Amino acid sequence: MSIAGVKALTFDVFGTVVDWRKSVIGEVTAMGLQVDAARFADAWRAGYQPAMQRVRSGEVWAPIDVLHRQILDGLLAGYKIDGLTETEKDRLNRVWHRLEPWADAAPGLAMLRRRCICATLSNGNISLLVNLSRHGGLTWDCVLSAEIYLAYKPDARVYLGAAETLGLDPDEVMMVAAHKADLLAARKAGLRTAFVERALEKGPGGGADVGREDWMDIYALDFMDLAGQLGVTA
Amino acid sequence: MSIAGVKALTFDVFGTVVDWRKSVIGEVTAMGLQVDAARFADAWRAGYQPAMQRVRSGEVWAPIDVLHRQILDGLLAGYKIDGLTETEKDRLNRVWHRLEPWADAAPGLAMLRRRCICATLSNGNISLLVNLSRHGGLTWDCVLSAEIYLAYKPDARVYLGAAETLGLDPDEVMMVAAHKADLLAARKAGLRTAFVERALEKGPGGGADVGREDWMDIYALDFMDLAGQLGVTA
Repeated sequence: MSIAGVKALTFDVFGTVVDWRKSVIGEVTAMGLQVDAARFADAWRAGYQPAMQRVRSGEVWAPIDVLHRQILDGLLAGYKIDGLTETEKDRLNRVWHRLEPWADAAPGLAMLRRRCICATLSNGNISLLVNLSRHGGLTWDCVLSAEIYLAYKPDARVYLGAAETLGLDPDEVMMVAAHKADLLAARKAGLRTAFVERALEKGPGGGADVGREDWMDIYALDFMDLAGQLGVTA
Repeated sequence: MSIAGVKALTFDVFGTVVDWRKSVIGEVTAMGLQVDAARFADAWRAGYQPAMQRVRSGEVWAPIDVLHRQILDGLLAGYKIDGLTETEKDRLNRVWHRLEPWADAAPGLAMLRRRCICATLSNGNISLLVNLSRHGGLTWDCVLSAEIYLAYKPDARVYLGAAETLGLDPDEVMMVAAHKADLLAARKAGLRTAFVERALEKGPGGGADVGREDWMDIYALDFMDLAGQLGVTA
């Protein structure tokens, strides 16, 4: 089947749709925490994969909101920051509900929705995705999340579950992400793949996961470019 | 808590957002089936509650697409219509993915989304809701369905599940429906309720379930009226 048969795009969100790093740095800075805000943001994000791994191996489901909070509490303890109220900590934790989209995300998504179904497929929980989308003016046909399948990407159940939920065969669905590991797992599950280059996801010189690979169906510079490669005209 | 504290509206879809009857009659007529199209549509819809009840009592989950097809096959047998191919039957069954919205639904929804989160909360499966929404130009913040909770309304798990998914307390969520039984069950689960009058849902003189009741938080004539009562200006 060619790319013409793609009936839905499923999007990774953190890093692919939104600039988590800049957003977290901005709020940490605005709060006046006595930390290097960039290192704080990077450490928070770095705790994410190990936290999901604990869920994967432990069989007890916990949503990303809970994992983000566990990591945050550890970071605050590490930095010896103990002056925050519960309300302040909860508000800080919910910065992940207020991440700013990359500049091309909202207009690109609007173009792509003219071509086919566009859904999130994120490890973020649904309330986070809904709040973040309303905050950033992002409109989806459907908000799909690891929360529905009680499994975290790159578990194949998430990709196959999304195809089934949308009533499609796996090769009618194209995963869109700025991370190769996500796309490789989607591809292994039978989905199509579109890589979107987010060179600054990890900051200047941060070593974002970019570069074309033979196995990618599409390599796009941003969502507008993706729309163009899928035949959507502005 | 007053209505000012409502942070999300969850919408019944069949009858409340879309005019299932007119849409089904239209497609049955266009196909040239030798039946009274209105009676056929009514009989199809009438099979819906008993079919869901079989799922409720049987503990084996089946999505609405499957239930609609079982009812359709029974109807076709009853009418002794045996000339349809599998492709034609599948296409007819998917008329429920192509239902037309009431005229106020899309513009009213756009207004309501400025006020708060707007999500479906339907017994229809997600792919049906996504296709129907794209067909009718309806935009949601989130597509929630009985399919996520593996329970059909009026089971309390659906209403409470939706509140939890959205990260809200039950009384921060308002169920919007044209059916009193749906609202009564939502209210019992702790949600707020908004009734929307759809006098023609069952056709002229069809006996739609209308009329104010003391327990309703809002009684609205349509989605624009609902928006107005919630303080949204055009």
